[in-house]
Amino acid sequence: MMRFLHTADWHIGRTLAGFNLAEDQQAVFDRLVATAKAEQVDAIVIAGDLYDRALANEDAVTMVNAMLTKLNRELGYPVLAISGNHDSAVRLNTGREWFAGTQLYLNTQLAQAFTPVTLGDTQFFLLPYFEPIAARQYFNDDSLTNLNLAMPRVVAAMQALFDPAKRHVLVAHFFAAGSEHSDSETLVNVGGLDAVAVSDLAPFDYVALGHLHNRHALQATKVQYAGSLLKFSVSEANQEKGVYIVDTETLTRKFVALAPRRELIHRTASYAELTAPDQPDRDAFTAVTLTDTEAIPNVMAALREAFPYLISLDRAHGVTGATATAKQVRHLSPQELLAQFYHDVTGAELTAEQQAWADAALAAAKEDD
Amino acid sequence: MMRFLHTADWHIGRTLAGFNLAEDQQAVFDRLVATAKAEQVDAIVIAGDLYDRALANEDAVTMVNAMLTKLNRELGYPVLAISGNHDSAVRLNTGREWFAGTQLYLNTQLAQAFTPVTLGDTQFFLLPYFEPIAARQYFNDDSLTNLNLAMPRVVAAMQALFDPAKRHVLVAHFFAAGSEHSDSETLVNVGGLDAVAVSDLAPFDYVALGHLHNRHALQATKVQYAGSLLKFSVSEANQEKGVYIVDTETLTRKFVALAPRRELIHRTASYAELTAPDQPDRDAFTAVTLTDTEAIPNVMAALREAFPYLISLDRAHGVTGATATAKQVRHLSPQELLAQFYHDVTGAELTAEQQAWADAALAAAKEDD
Repeated sequence: MMRFLHTADWHIGRTLAGFNLAEDQQAVFDRLVATAKAEQVDAIVIAGDLYDRALANEDAVTMVNAMLTKLNRELGYPVLAISGNHDSAVRLNTGREWFAGTQLYLNTQLAQAFTPVTLGDTQFFLLPYFEPIAARQYFNDDSLTNLNLAMPRVVAAMQALFDPAKRHVLVAHFFAAGSEHSDSETLVNVGGLDAVAVSDLAPFDYVALGHLHNRHALQATKVQYAGSLLKFSVSEANQEKGVYIVDTETLTRKFVALAPRRELIHRTASYAELTAPDQPDRDAFTAVTLTDTEAIPNVMAALREAFPYLISLDRAHGVTGATATAKQVRHLSPQELLAQFYHDVTGAELTAEQQAWADAALAAAKEDD
Repeated sequence: MMRFLHTADWHIGRTLAGFNLAEDQQAVFDRLVATAKAEQVDAIVIAGDLYDRALANEDAVTMVNAMLTKLNRELGYPVLAISGNHDSAVRLNTGREWFAGTQLYLNTQLAQAFTPVTLGDTQFFLLPYFEPIAARQYFNDDSLTNLNLAMPRVVAAMQALFDPAKRHVLVAHFFAAGSEHSDSETLVNVGGLDAVAVSDLAPFDYVALGHLHNRHALQATKVQYAGSLLKFSVSEANQEKGVYIVDTETLTRKFVALAPRRELIHRTASYAELTAPDQPDRDAFTAVTLTDTEAIPNVMAALREAFPYLISLDRAHGVTGATATAKQVRHLSPQELLAQFYHDVTGAELTAEQQAWADAALAAAKEDD
C-alpha cells in the first residue's frame, strides 16, 4: 500500500485584487509540507496549474523551483505532477529529462501520459492538460474534435497498460461533467476545455483532479478535485481549502484543511457598522457588500481605512438615485459601469488618464482569464 | 589530460533584421555537435548568453532545452555552462539542482562559482555574469562598486580553492580590458559590465570567455572569447565563426570554423550592379552599401527583389540633393532620420500610423539592447 498527498491549482504568481499573494502561497505550502510529514505520505501528487500564467514572472519561477526542490530533493518525496491550462507546457518542461532521476515525474505532453509511473502498489497515469488537437495528432484520428471524444481513447490506451496486480490512479486537469465551478474559473476556460463524463473515468481506482478551485465541485466516489490551496475570489470565501490524503490500499481519502496566512472574508453590513471602531478580522482579505442604498462619497477610501486588505465592494440593494438602474446596468459595458460607479461615488467624471488606466486594466483582466 | 569544446553567445531566440534565425541556429549547433564528436572532446563549455533575452519565447525555450538534452543526455558530454547578461539567471536556473546528476553544471549565481567542478586534470570555475551588487553582498564589502574592484576578490577566492595538482580554467562572461567590440554588443552592455583587466586573470591556465561576438576582440595568450556561433550584425560580416578546442595538457587551443546555413555578406556596389540579373549569393543575408549618390525611388523593394534576405541598406557617399547634410544627420534623432530617409526614398511623408509604428519599433529596439 501507499499513501499520497493530492494537491492542485497552486497558481503561483497570482494576485488578489492587486495584492501580491507570494507570502500567502509560501505559508500554505509550508503547511502542505508539514501535513505531508505528519501524515507520513509516500508521494506528492500535483494535478496541474502550478503557475498562474504561461509567462510567469521571475519571482514565481523562483518560488515554484524552490517548492519542487524542497519536496523532491530536500525531503525526498517522489512527486507526480502535470501541467494545467494555466501553465506553459513548454516552460514547465524545462529540466524534465533530468527530474525523473530523483522521482520527480512531470508530464507536460499528452504522449508522456502513456508511460505510467509505478510507486508501491500503484500505477500512476499523469495526464497533462491537453487540447483536442493533441489527441488528434497522437491517435492520428481527425474525428477527435473535443475532449468528450478524446478522453475515452486516452483512457482505453491507458487501460491497455494496466498491471492487474496494481492500483490505477489517474492524475489529470480538466472539467469533469457535473461539476460546478466557481468564479475564479472562467467560462472561457471551462468551455474551451469541454467536459469529461465521470463515467469515462470508471476504470481508475482514483482520479486526482485539478482545474476547479472548489473541492466540492464534483460529487463522485472515486473522482476528486483537490481544490486550490488559497481562496482566489469572493465566491470562494466559504470554501475550506486544503489537500487530500489518499490511501491506495483502502482506497479511502481524507481532507486535511490548511489554514491560510490571511483569511478571505465576505462581509455584508451597513457602512456605519463597517466603519465603526474595533472591527474584527481587520487584516483579512475583505469583500464588502454594503446594505446601504444611498450614495456614499469616498466610500472606497473609508473602507480601505477600516479594512486595509479590501478586495471588492458591491451593494446588496443597489444605490438609490444612482443614474443607472439595475436593468440599465446589464446593458452597460465594463467601461461604462466603471465610469457610472466612479461618478456615483465621487460625483466627478473620470479623467482621460483614468479612463486610459481603466481600459488597460480591463484589457489585462480579460487576458488573465 | 582532457580536451574541451569552448563555445559562447548562442543567443537562441535572436532575429536578424526581422528574419527568424531558428533554423540557422539549429544548423550551426548541429555542426558544433559534429565537431565535438570529430575532435573527441571530453566536455562542452558554454560561456553564457544561451538565450538572446531574459524573457525568451517558447520556441527559444524548446530549442535551448533540446540542445542541452542532446549534448548532455543523449551524447553524454559533461556540460559546463554559465548565464550571461542576456540570460535570465532565475529562469536558466530552473532544474539546476537536478542537472549536476548527469554532469550538466549550470551556474547562474555568483555564490555558485566557488564550488569548482573537477573533470580529468582540470578544475573548472564557472562564473556567471553578475552585477557588482552581487559581489558586494557575497563578500559583504560595500567598496566593491564595479567589476574592476570585484574581480580580484573573485579570483582570489577561487585561487584559495586551487588544487595545485590540477589545471585551472575559468569560464566567465564579461568585457575584458583591451578587447574591441562589435556593433552587436551595445555600449550600454559593455559599459554596464565595466571591464576586467586581463592581468587579473593571470592565475588561470585558460579563461574561456563569452560576451563579445568577435573571437579576435581580445588578443591574449590564455584568455579567449569563443565568439558567437553566427554573425548577428553587418559589422561581423568578415568574421569567421566557430568554436575552440582546448587541450588542458598542452594548454593549446585551436579554432574550428563552423559554416553557417546562410552566409551574411556586405556588398558595396552601385544600384545598377546589384539589380543586374544573376546575382551571386542571392540567398545570403545581405547588407548593401550603395555607391550611387542620387535618390532612387523604391530602392528597398527593388533590392529585396534581388536579395530576399536583405538586412540593411546605406550609402557609401550619401545622397545628392538629400535634405539633410552629413553634419545635420549627426544632430537628428532616429525618428527624424527615419522621416528624412523615407522622404528621400519615396518622396512622401510618413503617415501618422507609420510614425507610430516607427516610434514603437525604435522603442522596442532600444529595449533590445
